[in-house]
Parts: sequence; structure tokens; C-alpha cells
Amino acid sequence: MALEGNAAIGQSGGPTMVINASLVGAIEAAREIPQIRRFYGAVHGMDGVLHERFIDLFRENDELVEEIRYRPSAALGTSRIKPDEADLKRAMKVFMAHNIRYLFYIGGDDSQSACHLLSELAKSHDWEMNIIGIPKTIDNDLVLTDACPGFGSAARLAASAVQYVSCDAEAFGNCEVVEIMGRNAGWLTAATALGRDEPRDGPHLVYVPEVTVNPDKFLGDCHSVYDEYGYLVIAVSEGFSFAESEIATTSEKVDEFGHTRLGGVAEALSDMVEEELGVRCRFDRPGNMQRSFALAQSQVDLDIAYAVGDDAVRRACRGETDVMITIQRKNDDPYEFECETTSLSSVAGQTRCLPDEYINDEQNGVTEAYLEYARPLTTPREYYPSGLPTYPRFQKFPIEPKLEAYER
Amino acid sequence: MALEGNAAIGQSGGPTMVINASLVGAIEAAREIPQIRRFYGAVHGMDGVLHERFIDLFRENDELVEEIRYRPSAALGTSRIKPDEADLKRAMKVFMAHNIRYLFYIGGDDSQSACHLLSELAKSHDWEMNIIGIPKTIDNDLVLTDACPGFGSAARLAASAVQYVSCDAEAFGNCEVVEIMGRNAGWLTAATALGRDEPRDGPHLVYVPEVTVNPDKFLGDCHSVYDEYGYLVIAVSEGFSFAESEIATTSEKVDEFGHTRLGGVAEALSDMVEEELGVRCRFDRPGNMQRSFALAQSQVDLDIAYAVGDDAVRRACRGETDVMITIQRKNDDPYEFECETTSLSSVAGQTRCLPDEYINDEQNGVTEAYLEYARPLTTPREYYPSGLPTYPRFQKFPIEPKLEAYER
Repeated sequence: MALEGNAAIGQSGGPTMVINASLVGAIEAAREIPQIRRFYGAVHGMDGVLHERFIDLFRENDELVEEIRYRPSAALGTSRIKPDEADLKRAMKVFMAHNIRYLFYIGGDDSQSACHLLSELAKSHDWEMNIIGIPKTIDNDLVLTDACPGFGSAARLAASAVQYVSCDAEAFGNCEVVEIMGRNAGWLTAATALGRDEPRDGPHLVYVPEVTVNPDKFLGDCHSVYDEYGYLVIAVSEGFSFAESEIATTSEKVDEFGHTRLGGVAEALSDMVEEELGVRCRFDRPGNMQRSFALAQSQVDLDIAYAVGDDAVRRACRGETDVMITIQRKNDDPYEFECETTSLSSVAGQTRCLPDEYINDEQNGVTEAYLEYARPLTTPREYYPSGLPTYPRFQKFPIEPKLEAYER
Repeated sequence: MALEGNAAIGQSGGPTMVINASLVGAIEAAREIPQIRRFYGAVHGMDGVLHERFIDLFRENDELVEEIRYRPSAALGTSRIKPDEADLKRAMKVFMAHNIRYLFYIGGDDSQSACHLLSELAKSHDWEMNIIGIPKTIDNDLVLTDACPGFGSAARLAASAVQYVSCDAEAFGNCEVVEIMGRNAGWLTAATALGRDEPRDGPHLVYVPEVTVNPDKFLGDCHSVYDEYGYLVIAVSEGFSFAESEIATTSEKVDEFGHTRLGGVAEALSDMVEEELGVRCRFDRPGNMQRSFALAQSQVDLDIAYAVGDDAVRRACRGETDVMITIQRKNDDPYEFECETTSLSSVAGQTRCLPDEYINDEQNGVTEAYLEYARPLTTPREYYPSGLPTYPRFQKFPIEPKLEAYER
């Protein structure tokens, strides 16, 4: 007998250009499933769960929901809360009070960890509840999935940005360092190489966190490129550092997860290059545009994001729980895929770094194998809205809280 | 009797997304005019002129030239040289040695000044030569023209960037400051307001160099917005400063024109906001993407850029000289225009700032009149290439130098 009750969904961590496609995939699937009575949207993710700030997603207008599919950044609001034990207990209390039997959480590996802990907690409370994690991260660093929804669009943005900035650097005949998001994994920075059509196109040098490079080797490579092409473009991950760690590249601020706020590597490298080559070296940081610049949405990315949301709801309603949806590639180009699952515990706390075969021998660029991997994920969105598009919001019909207020 | 001889064209200053449309407009017009025997492309602008580094544009393949129309950033290479008297004399010597009778220079007001001085010098040398300036600047600050080619696309990029970053800030419920290019004039920063569809959309506050704002008023406005909408997005010109100049917003480096390299106002404001509101405030600087991110090309901008290049060549060959091409608006929406001219001396050294009627009474935003002005300039490009487009280069058939080398 199918488990009947309410479902809840939340969005967590850094938003992406396609995170709402997953949300809309889940809403549209849930509408077809009678055992889901009410679909709760958690406002600002775990924060909304803890404080019982939910909206009634089934009351939202169908056309509006469809439009929200293309809105960049979390339409429900997001959160960087890393729930502690007390928070998780509170969350369970909220779920029980609202008869929530299905939980879907769209996020990176921190979110998958939280889902796994909630799943364990539900068991210990004898609360029958199916919990499925929906992958999302521009970093593409979740294990056991071919790609993470959010990556393809961010890769398209990063590649475009470096391509255009390269045209600019070439026009001036100077040097340029572009800093790309990526703390521990260089998937996104590597993707900047997709915009190269011939060797003299930028980026000429690509540095990812997976490699440790000697500063002398780095400066030697800069000389070679500049001498050959008359300009130089470097793409570097925010998490890159030299072997000797001679260059201070991080700020001292920390984010809400306790992670050091990164930033500064591009500026440090550009100073080095300018001094060594005696040529002006600029730097650019596309920054938050990497996860929100919707002009760069990838169609394949939009499609896989929608699919993982849809599939999560269907699987949960067939009784699956404590898993994350994964993407299995079936064909390279055009990209074809199927949704599968992996246990949440297999994903939580893991980081998928770039494998060696995607990094060149010189450790200053990527291989053709990487480009073949990434290219099909970055197809452009099939339809571009004319003018400046408008991005509607949910109407946000609130659901009444049932518990006392929660202090956090 | 029509003046026969060679023509030369150069690109100068910061490139734009449409600067090559002007170049291609000029090349395609020149191909139809028999009195232009050879069309010289100056490699890296004035630098190429001084050192006789020219390519033969008539030998370039027609289809390639047409494709270069859409390449962002100067396809001939650009230069920031501000020529001194010796440079100008050398340039004149080069023109005479190569029988250059027509000169077209694509640039901002520094370039228009150089063209005017060259025009005077040609007269004093009794060298019959028609010199026409082709306007170009993302800053939109040339006087006596409705718009500057380059502005519409940069405005579209700036508006899109702030729109997307706003979605991101709303998803987090935090604050964000976006720093937009603009030293003395706020046209581009003002354009970020084009992405607003309703009052709760960002940017909520827009600060341009034309206004001087009291820091207390600024922080009060930040409070009001955050209290009302739960997030806050500020767009600020790099050249903005407070009335009291309490905030150091510029770096100490200077560029090749002797201008101070700007940058830092967004970071300074975000620190102020974070401290005052006690809410995380991030900042972003789209940086050089503002002039090169070709995904944001505006069709009207591409069209006017092409038109001024085309018109410059046709007018010069009809005997006009010492003028800059201007755009006169004939209809608002859809945008219709005609090319006219103004004397180079009327443009050189002038900066068109935002007029008062485009800035709101609170001095923290723009008026509807500004939006009506800017909106038709930012139509999207009619055709988007699929995949990541490739941007071809000229084949660059060199023209032999005729003079001794020049030391600069």
C-alpha cells in the first residue's frame, strides 16, 4: 500500500542557473501522484524547515510554475545552514507534525549528508518517510554521477567569459588571469578550455586545484605563451595554489559553512605575471555570475536538472529512500542519459576531483578526453527570450506552523 | 575630381562587443569605392601607424570579413597610446609615404582629439586628406550623439548581470553590490535598472558618478530596502564617491593614458553595508566582460556600429573631413536612426554626463525617462550562434614599411 501524506522540498547551498528546473520537475511529477496530498516548499531550505516556513506548491499556478523552470537561482530561497543534531531533531519533529512522508532536498554533498542523517533519524523514530537527494552543484564534484545539474550552464558561462576576455586581451596584446569558482575540484576551470578553437586562442594555461605547480615552471610557461602569441590568458581555480604555497591566495573571512571565503588567486598571479613579463596583466573574477548568468543556460543541463527532480519524486513514491539521483551517460554527443540512484552515504562527504586523464602532462591544461566529456553538457538553451526576460516568483501561499517557535 | 589614394583605419581604447561591426561596415563600404586603392588596417591602432604595421584589408576574404563583424574586441588590435606632437608628426610622415588620403579612427574622445590634431597637421602640410572619427565607447559619454556604438551591448550585459545576481541575492536573502564600469558618467550603471520588472526586483539602489551622496543617507536607504524586501542589490559606478569622500575607492595604479585605474568601490560599499545591516553583503565586478561578453550583443547596437563605419567611408569619399559620425534618433521603439556628423573639435575633450532628468530625486536611482532612452538600444541579437561560437581572425597580409624604424 502506497505511503500517503505530504511531501516537502527544499533548495540548499549556492544556487545554479538550472536549480529551479529540478524544483519544477519535482512539482510537475508530484501533481500526477495522488498519494502526495500537499507539496510543501521550504522557504530558504533547512532554515524554512526549522522555522516551519513553508509554502503550498500545489496552489501555485501551472503556467507560473513552468516559467519558474528558467529562473536562475533558488526560487524557494536557499540556505547555507549546516544542521547540527538539535536541528535535525527539530526537523524531524516538524515533519511528523505536518505528516510529511516524502522529503526532497536539492543540494551538494553537505545537503546529501543532511538527508542521510534525517533518513537515519526517521528510522529511529519509526516514522515512515522516503527521503531522496537531488544533486546540484556548479562544481560538478559529487561522486558517482556523470554530471551534476548546474555544471553544464556554469561551464558554458565560464568558457564564454574566458573566450570573450581572451578576445579583449588579444586586442590589447596584454595578459589576463580569470578566476573561476572551484575550491577543491577544477571541473569548471577546466571547462574554460571548451572555448578554444586553435592553439593561439585563450585560455593558454589552465590551473586547477588538483595540481601543484612550481612557480618557476609557471612563469616559464607564461613567457613561452606570450612570446609565441603576443598575449596570454590564464584560467585559474579559486582553490589553486603553488607547490610551495608561496602565494597567499585566500582571504581571512569564512562563510556560513565555516569554509574560508576564497578569492585573490587571480590578483596574486596577475601581479606575478606583470612583474615577470613587464607587460600589463589584468584579472577578472566572473564571481557570482558563474551560477546565475542565465544567458548561458545549457539545454542539456536544464534537461538533466528537470529529470533528476522528476525522477526523485517518482522513485520516492515507489518506495525508494536514502538515495541520491544520479545521471548515467548513455551517449556522448548528442548527450543521452538515464537517471539511476546511489545511496546517500556513498555520496556524503565525498569530493570528485578531476581524474588524472583529464589533466595534461604539463599540468597546465586539460586533455581532449576532458573536452569530450564536458562539451555535450554545454549545449546552448534552445530558445532565448527576446528583450530582457522577466523572472516570475511563486505566489507563496503560506502553510500555517503547528509547533512552538524554534530558536537557532 | 575625387581624391584618389589609399585609406587607413584603426581601432583605439577599450574594445567593445560591436567595435568590429564598425570596422566591417567601413571595409564593405570601401570595397565599393574605386578611388580607395588600398585599405590599410593599422595593427594596434596608433601604435601600428607609428611603426608602419599595417595589413591589407582588401585582400581579406569576404566571408571572413562578414564573420568578424560579430567578434567582440578589436580584431585589428587596439592601443591606449595617447600620441604626443612627435607621434603625430611621425603619423603624418607615414600617411604621406603611403599615399594615405583617408583616415578612419574608431574610438572615444581621446581618439577624436587625435583625429582633429591630425586633421590640422595635414592642412599645415598641404596634404589633402579626409579624416573621419568613428565613435565607440561602452561609456556612452561622447557628446552630440544619441548613443555611442558599444553602449547598447554593454548596457545589456550590465542589466543582465545585475538581474541574475539579484536572483542570487534574493535566494540567499542577503546583500550584494555590483560594480559597473564608468569613470565620470553613469550611463552604463543606470542601465542596470532596465532589468527591473517590479519594485522588489534588484537593483534597488543605483549610484552614478554624477551624484554625491551622504553616507548616512546611503545607509538609511539600504536599511529601508532590506527591511522591505529581505534582500538588497546595489549597482554602483566605479567612479562613484560619497560627498565627503570618506571612502577610498580607487587604486594607486594608473593606466597607459595616465588615468587612475579604478576599482574597489563595490568592496568598500559592501563592507559598509555588511557592518551596518549585520547581513552578509557580497560584491561582484563584471569587469572586462562588460565590453567583451558577446552573448549580450544588442542588435540595435550592432546595427548602429555598422552604420557609423559605413557612413564614415562614404562621407570621406564625398569630401567630408575633420568630423565624427553621430547618431540621430528618429524613432524610440523600435529604434530608428540616421547618421549625421559633428566637427571633431566639438567632441574632443568633452564628456557627456547623465542629465538631471535621468536621475531620480533621491539620487539613488534612475527615472522612467532614462529607461525610455536606453531600452531600445539594448535589443538582443537576432540570431544566436549555437554551441560556443568561433571568432575568426583576419589573415593579416602585411604591407611593407617604407620608412626608417620609429623609436617611441
